[in-house]
Amino acid sequence: MKVNVKKEALFKALQKVSNIIGSRTTLPVLANVLIEAVQNKLTLTTTDLELRITTFVEAQVETAGTTTLPAKRLLGLVSKFKGENVLLETNEKHHTQITCGTANFMILGLTPEDFPVPVDFTFQRSFKVKQADFSRILDRISYAVSLDDSRKVLQGVFLSVKEGNLTAVATDGKRLALVEKLLDEVSEGSDGDVIITLKVANEVKRILEKEGDVVLEIGEKQILFKLNDTLVYSKLIDGNYPNYRQVIPASFVKKISVPCNDFIDALEIVSIPLFDASSSFVKITFAENRLLFEANSNIGEGKEYINIEYNDPESISLSFNPQFLSDPFKHIGVDNVMIKINDAFSPIAVESGDGFLYVIMPMRNK
Amino acid sequence: MKVNVKKEALFKALQKVSNIIGSRTTLPVLANVLIEAVQNKLTLTTTDLELRITTFVEAQVETAGTTTLPAKRLLGLVSKFKGENVLLETNEKHHTQITCGTANFMILGLTPEDFPVPVDFTFQRSFKVKQADFSRILDRISYAVSLDDSRKVLQGVFLSVKEGNLTAVATDGKRLALVEKLLDEVSEGSDGDVIITLKVANEVKRILEKEGDVVLEIGEKQILFKLNDTLVYSKLIDGNYPNYRQVIPASFVKKISVPCNDFIDALEIVSIPLFDASSSFVKITFAENRLLFEANSNIGEGKEYINIEYNDPESISLSFNPQFLSDPFKHIGVDNVMIKINDAFSPIAVESGDGFLYVIMPMRNK
Repeated sequence: MKVNVKKEALFKALQKVSNIIGSRTTLPVLANVLIEAVQNKLTLTTTDLELRITTFVEAQVETAGTTTLPAKRLLGLVSKFKGENVLLETNEKHHTQITCGTANFMILGLTPEDFPVPVDFTFQRSFKVKQADFSRILDRISYAVSLDDSRKVLQGVFLSVKEGNLTAVATDGKRLALVEKLLDEVSEGSDGDVIITLKVANEVKRILEKEGDVVLEIGEKQILFKLNDTLVYSKLIDGNYPNYRQVIPASFVKKISVPCNDFIDALEIVSIPLFDASSSFVKITFAENRLLFEANSNIGEGKEYINIEYNDPESISLSFNPQFLSDPFKHIGVDNVMIKINDAFSPIAVESGDGFLYVIMPMRNK
Repeated sequence: MKVNVKKEALFKALQKVSNIIGSRTTLPVLANVLIEAVQNKLTLTTTDLELRITTFVEAQVETAGTTTLPAKRLLGLVSKFKGENVLLETNEKHHTQITCGTANFMILGLTPEDFPVPVDFTFQRSFKVKQADFSRILDRISYAVSLDDSRKVLQGVFLSVKEGNLTAVATDGKRLALVEKLLDEVSEGSDGDVIITLKVANEVKRILEKEGDVVLEIGEKQILFKLNDTLVYSKLIDGNYPNYRQVIPASFVKKISVPCNDFIDALEIVSIPLFDASSSFVKITFAENRLLFEANSNIGEGKEYINIEYNDPESISLSFNPQFLSDPFKHIGVDNVMIKINDAFSPIAVESGDGFLYVIMPMRNK
């Protein structure tokens, strides 16, 4: 293999594929990036056996060929190179000469024969979303995925397509985050449900760009994300996602508009005395055009308020885990949110007005 | 105690004193800041029993008094406050009301009677340095302090004043960093040697500002750093500092000027294949107006060079631990350094031209 490639292009490509490589890999070859040079194109592939990322870079291929190189070392080298072009030249022992500017390296690769082959992918259906939209969807909900091993399906993000509408859901059983998004194109046979892992959600989100679409191709046990020059394959989570619709109250008695940043600031400051207190809660009270925040712990207590429109003579207090309460506000990405309430003991909703919904149950202590 | 203080001033003062507080303290009161309000002044003090930092803030003192409050929580609160003034009001049980803007907190303090009293300080001598100069001195040498417990004296920074000249030294036995600095003022009786701990060196460096002087007052077993509105007391390291002068070669055969940033970049890039290799070394070779860097490990090898003026027909190669070789270049703060050499097996010197000297022994493998 002998290839000449633009340094910046190679650098960006290596950044896309290197992140899934852990610091300790079970098989040595999993620390390496598979490099294939064919017809003016370099193909870079990494895998952790659960995910497989492939990306393409334009290159001048003098001699076609295939090798593997330690991905993070190669990324480290390319990030420090000062020249414009990188020359890669591999011999039959998979020793690769890497030259850029005045710098010259010889790196010992591993034979590509040891690199895991892709799992068979049987296409079943697909749908398409704008990359910027998909990034926002994942950002708005993925924090709500369960970290608890006991219910595998809750450890993933649920994606459901029905009649041209995408619903994305994450829940850990204590709170639920949901986005509904109308797809730009409705194609026949794209309806269906799938649960993707949090790992692939995070990895795809990292690679998503501002422009272009991402096509989600769903197979039997696998999903393929196609975005620009990159392909991300992942195992799917097997199982039935719970009926999340039943936890969303059908109606609410009160609807109050709340400024998002003020809400976060007030919640954060009253939470400071709570630090370390894992079973802690913050009480919020809607009263007299104010939203009052209160918290207390063994080291003291705090109060703060923000101005809202609330002229109901009856005030209402609810208590929440401060982390669970702040999460949606931090990721919602709008200036004002609508908080919907029934009473102090029923789930409340936080809505963005553009398809995002968060449902959380108040705590009993108040 | 009842005090009104500017939020920004209180914030800066808390930043100065809070850093020495560990996350786990043996005595609960060591997590607290001692607050004393007397005559338009708030005095904030923290201690870890080895260091004691006191800083002063202007304040409107309505009722004088003393209390203690959890330092990091208080810093956390003040950093988030949105108002301009902070009102502190403490009752006889050391419950303190803290009010700023719309936020109101009650924090439980501990009685100041439990706060450690200062150790007796018997003034012996003092000298004065510009804060900016002292900061630069510490930055240029403190990385070379020994982290090995076996020789206590090498775990500190040696400060020696003799006839109006300050010499600051750090060494771990493998390399030595030294700064010589002419003091602005020579006062009688200020000559003498002292070893300060790395902890106080780092803490003082953190607090040092661009303007003003720092006065170092030396007592029998303690040192006091006086800077602007802050006092830092610390234990001294007891013992005799080794005769570091004997490791500095009296003369050198070759003197080569080297561009500092190019040197760091070349050293870093050839070190990438070395990552993880603890017993690794980098070989540098002076030859034909080039300085060549070479390294190799079980994953490959790297070469890079930079242009220098070196027209000696005899080339010379030396091997070093890459970390020890890069340290002075990262902290020297000048564009070009002078490397002084005798032969491949004798210590080399790196000099800044303005009082900084680094001496390092080459490794035997080359």
